[in-house]
Formats: sequence, C-alpha cells, structure tokens
Amino acid sequence: MARVHNFNPGPAALPAPVLEDVQAELMDYAGYGLSVMEMSHRAPSFMEIYERTEATLRELLHIPDAYDVLFLSGGATLEFAALAMNLMRTGRAGYVVSGHFSKVAMNEGAKYGEALCLATGEDTDFSAIPAKADIDAQVAREAAAGGLDYVHICQNNTIYGTMYQALPDTGDVPLVADVSSCFLSLPLDVERYGVIYAGAQKNAGPAGVTVVICRHDLIADGPALGITPAYLDWRSQAMKQSMLNTPNTFGIYVCGKVFEWVKEMGGLEAMEARNRKKASMLYDVIDHSELFCGVARPADRSIANVTFTTNTPELDREFVSEAAKAGLVGLGGHRLVGGMRASIYNAVPKTSVERLCGLMREFEELHAGTSATE
Amino acid sequence: MARVHNFNPGPAALPAPVLEDVQAELMDYAGYGLSVMEMSHRAPSFMEIYERTEATLRELLHIPDAYDVLFLSGGATLEFAALAMNLMRTGRAGYVVSGHFSKVAMNEGAKYGEALCLATGEDTDFSAIPAKADIDAQVAREAAAGGLDYVHICQNNTIYGTMYQALPDTGDVPLVADVSSCFLSLPLDVERYGVIYAGAQKNAGPAGVTVVICRHDLIADGPALGITPAYLDWRSQAMKQSMLNTPNTFGIYVCGKVFEWVKEMGGLEAMEARNRKKASMLYDVIDHSELFCGVARPADRSIANVTFTTNTPELDREFVSEAAKAGLVGLGGHRLVGGMRASIYNAVPKTSVERLCGLMREFEELHAGTSATE
Repeated sequence: MARVHNFNPGPAALPAPVLEDVQAELMDYAGYGLSVMEMSHRAPSFMEIYERTEATLRELLHIPDAYDVLFLSGGATLEFAALAMNLMRTGRAGYVVSGHFSKVAMNEGAKYGEALCLATGEDTDFSAIPAKADIDAQVAREAAAGGLDYVHICQNNTIYGTMYQALPDTGDVPLVADVSSCFLSLPLDVERYGVIYAGAQKNAGPAGVTVVICRHDLIADGPALGITPAYLDWRSQAMKQSMLNTPNTFGIYVCGKVFEWVKEMGGLEAMEARNRKKASMLYDVIDHSELFCGVARPADRSIANVTFTTNTPELDREFVSEAAKAGLVGLGGHRLVGGMRASIYNAVPKTSVERLCGLMREFEELHAGTSATE
Repeated sequence: MARVHNFNPGPAALPAPVLEDVQAELMDYAGYGLSVMEMSHRAPSFMEIYERTEATLRELLHIPDAYDVLFLSGGATLEFAALAMNLMRTGRAGYVVSGHFSKVAMNEGAKYGEALCLATGEDTDFSAIPAKADIDAQVAREAAAGGLDYVHICQNNTIYGTMYQALPDTGDVPLVADVSSCFLSLPLDVERYGVIYAGAQKNAGPAGVTVVICRHDLIADGPALGITPAYLDWRSQAMKQSMLNTPNTFGIYVCGKVFEWVKEMGGLEAMEARNRKKASMLYDVIDHSELFCGVARPADRSIANVTFTTNTPELDREFVSEAAKAGLVGLGGHRLVGGMRASIYNAVPKTSVERLCGLMREFEELHAGTSATE
C-alpha cells in the first residue's frame, strides 16, 4: 500500500528519506557488518553517531557551549520529576498551567517541594494561553515574596492546539520549558531558557528518546535533592555523554538522521516557514467554513497541532472515519477535547495538508446546512 | 561487507531473521502504510503489537496471571531506584553484592532506606558468587531481626562472567532479581521471584526497553514512597499497559519479534541447551589451554558471558585486535576486569563460537611458550 497521510500527534510522521536510509542500513551500518541496534554504545562506530547527532542539534538550534545536551528516555513525564529533583534547591517553583500536561508537571513537582500555580487557562478550557502580562507580574511577585527555583511552561499544548507566541519574562528565574510538540518546528532562542526538554516522538525521531538541553551552571553542583535516582541526575548524565548506562542507541541514531534532514531542508527557519504555511492553509479553511470551527483562540494558535470541530460529535466521528478511508490517519482529537486534531509536524508534507483541506471542503459541501451553529 | 561475528556484551547481536523482518516492514508495517515508528501508541495497529509481544513473553516464561508485565525504559539503572521506591514499605531491604551492578543497585537503594549488604563476593574480586548457604542464613537472620522488604540479587554478572546456579531461599521475603544478561538465555521459575527485571539489550531486543515482571500483590497498594515519579510507579504502569505516557514503541516491536523467534527456535529450554553447548565449547578450550585461563570460578560460570585472559595485558590486547581483524567483534573485557569476554547470547550462532574457539587455538599455537603462567 502507498504510504498514508500521517497526522498522528506523536509518535508521528517521519521524513521518508530518513526511513529509507534507516531501512538501507538496517542489517549493516556503514560497512561495519552489523546493525546500529547491535553495536556497543561505547564502540567508536556508535560514539561517532552520538557525537554527530549532538553536533547537528547544536548547529540547528545554535546551542551555546554553556548548555549541556542530553539524550535520555522516559519522556516528558519522567522529566517532570527530574527537573524538580535537579533544580528545586530552595524547594519553591512556579508553574503556568496551559493544559493537561503542564498541570501534570505541576502535580509531579508538588511531590518534591512547593509547586505554585502562577496562572491557568482552565477558565477557557485551555483554548487560550494565560496572558503574558499576568504571568510576568505573578512571576515577579512570587520571586520577590519567597524566591522561585524556576518557572515551568509547556510551550505548545498538543491536546488543545495552543502555543505561546511570546515567552514569559522571568528575570533571573530560570525558565524551564517542555517543548515536546514544537521542538524543531521553529527556531528557539536557547539563551532565553534555563532548561528545554522534549520527547522526540513529534519532530525529532521515534518514541523512546527525550532531549534535555540544560544550562550547565544550573546543574553544576549536582541534583538539588538527595533522593534523585542516578539515571535522573542531569549532571552525571552530562559528564557521561548520556551514557551513565546503555542509552536508546537506535532511537538516538534515528534522531540524528532527522536532524540532518532538517539541516538539508534549510534548518529551523525553513521549517518554521513551511509549518506556518501548512498551518495557515488549515486555519484558512476553518475560518472560512460554516461547518468547522477552531478550538484554540486565534491569537494562541499552534503551528504544530491544528484543532477543530463541527461541534457535533457524530459529524466529527464521520469526518475522521471518512478521512481514514481516504488515507488520512491520526485526525481524531484527544479524548479530553474531542473533535479533530491535525498534527502537521515537519515530516508532514504540504501535499498531505492540501489533501486534508480538500477533504474538509468536500465534507462541508456534502453536509451543507447541517452545521451545529445554525 | 558480510555480517560480523558479534560478541558484544550489550547492545548485542540480534537474530538475522528478526532484522530482516524489521527491515522489510520499515516503511510500511503490515499494509498500514506507515512505519511502526510513525504509529500512535494508542492505535489498534500498535496495541495489537503490544499485546502480542506481552502474550509471547508470558508464554515463553510461563508467567502466571498474578504477575504484571511492563515494558519501560531507563535500563536496570533506573529500576534500581524504582524497585526501592515501589517496595521499601518498612524501609529495610537486603542486597547480595556479586559484582559491580549489584553494588550500584545497593547504593541506589540506600537513598531510600536501609540497604543491607547480606553477602559480597568482593574478597574474590567477584570471580565467585557468594555461597548460597551464607546468603540463606543471612536472609533468615535479618528477616527475623528487623524484617526485609525484599532481597535483591543480580543473577548473571556480565562483567565477571558469573551466574547463580541456584537461587537463594528467601522464605517469605520477595526475591528481586536483575536478570538483564541472562534473561531468555534459559527458563526462569517466575514464581520463585517477587520481581524480575531486565534491560532488553542483551537477549530481548534493542537498547531502550526494560522489561519488569512483578507479582501484583507487591504493588497493589501503589508505591511505598510518596516521592516516586509517576513514570516509575509500577502499579500505574501496570494499570495502563506501560502507557502512562508514550513508550518506546519501536523497541517494544523489535522485542516482540525476538520473542517470536525464540518461540520458533523451540523456546527457552532449547535456548538453554544451545547456550550451554556454546559455553561448554569455550570453557573446554579455556580448560585445555596453557595460554588462556578463565576469570570466573568454574562452579559459578555464566552461560551468557565467558570471561578469560592470558594474564598478559599486551597479549590480551593483541588477541582482541587479531579477532577483530578476523571479523570477531566485541571481545574486549570490561575495563574493571580486562582480558576478554565473549558474550554468547541467543542470537550468537554456534558457528561464531566455533570460529572463536578456532582462533583461540591458533593464537595459542602461535604464542606457544609465552604463557604468563610459565
């Protein structure tokens, strides 16, 4: 069968040239006579892969030397605990709740210290990112009142389809961001952050790899808490090039291939332009539709996850089902929101988005007059 | 280039038919039109893979229903912390130190409670497993004195080439075993254990997957410690089929293929017979050699990792280098021991071991009279 149009939220579409390369090298990597999966992580053949992977990522994101880059596992969920264990030195941190995962992160942080909710989008059902002015003011207030070890945000909210358009100003308080679903979708100004982390399974590679980019001075003294598992000790992992124990070697190798593909495609500036174009095609259909409407507040719309609905659950299901029949998969919205979600990460080509736009128009024509807003 | 003879200690050789399958399906799994790496972990196509993988493992090891099976990540190193967090209900556990990793496990346990050393092989440089009678007596003594939440062993010591030939008798105290390097090398009597865990990268699949097999009643009340990260909460992971968050989907898929291969090859009884044959071929060369001698005490020899040395570091290096030239890779001993180590996991064919035995004999002939024992 031909490859489908893949709108999965993660694990998600990977670039076809990357998969073709991986396939070609699967039994014998670069003439070494074995698969990357069969190599010792300490062998020069793998260390070369690891170092090239890190170097390409550093190049793409212009990561300064003052930052360590780690390739770990356990996803953002495990890092929710790790960041508190590593950074909660005074035992007080601030969280902006802009969706499900940022709330989970806050609840996880509360196991290890005081996890303050600085602002929440709960009153809008997370269709909007809390206002920057409110966040900034609250950070300043709490930093002055009792100090903050860090301020945590989830920069793109996969489930709701919202994204920060501007970062909070946190002054001297390190900004920590879960960027899982917008990592490599656009450039990031790394120096604005203390820590950036991301599950790879959206834009960076297969599931099973977590990228952590951490300003070294924040971890130079080791983890804040003595109960930190060795595996989650960012300083130790940085000293050992993520090889305190055997890492997900194959996953890191595929990430490296994806990074090289991004570079060949023109880097993150080119990715952002492509992603904005794809997103605007979809938002344009939504904004001109009498059947479909967007879930996220227009000012906070994500360029990675486009959420929309007909406001009729039966019709939503019909659309997702019709789309699947036409070879467009992964369009069902998250159970917390319902409706539809098109995840249009880097590896989703414009042609797939065109096909989806076409299908939405056809579906609307077919169901003219059944809009729930009538 | 032809595929090499792969004696890597882990990540290690994978069965060629498994890799061929993975390669064939890489761009399009079973006609779904996408790679397993690109599938949502919640899609029926992946859930079918997951459930088949678990079912095959249950069949191979005859895992009773009273045990949960988890596919996590972070390796044994992360489970060292997880097991203490989940099981240290009274805050006191016993550890048998039979090598480097079992000591690391004990030190990790000591972060969360009292981690007692019940017995150690340090006096023999870990060339021997501590005597069963001593372990059993010490367990009984400590269990009576202050109670023990569990007794931890590392069943096969990859670095030293030693393996328990009989399990300790721990009475009512749950036995917890890191079986990473002998997992699937031979049958295990699961009911003898409270918890069995293993990094997949020896016999079960690629690096990045950790298998945890846990008696359900031990975790039914949730983790012992409130500071347990959600990801490491075995009960939650069991309730969610290892999908509290996105698991290493591709790694789990490859593990499933390996499990099916083991089943087709005759199951764990057949694997044990094959592995014992391969091991005895090597030990036979070692025992009849005037140049090579074994590292492990003969009574405690591993059937997965065969350690040996010429007792001359230069000659050891020459052997490893000559072997590599002849297409036999991964034979260098661990830095803590030196010498040579042949890891002969399930996927290492008898022909590779024959080739190694031949090379050892040739090398000895060439270096007759240079033995360090003369």
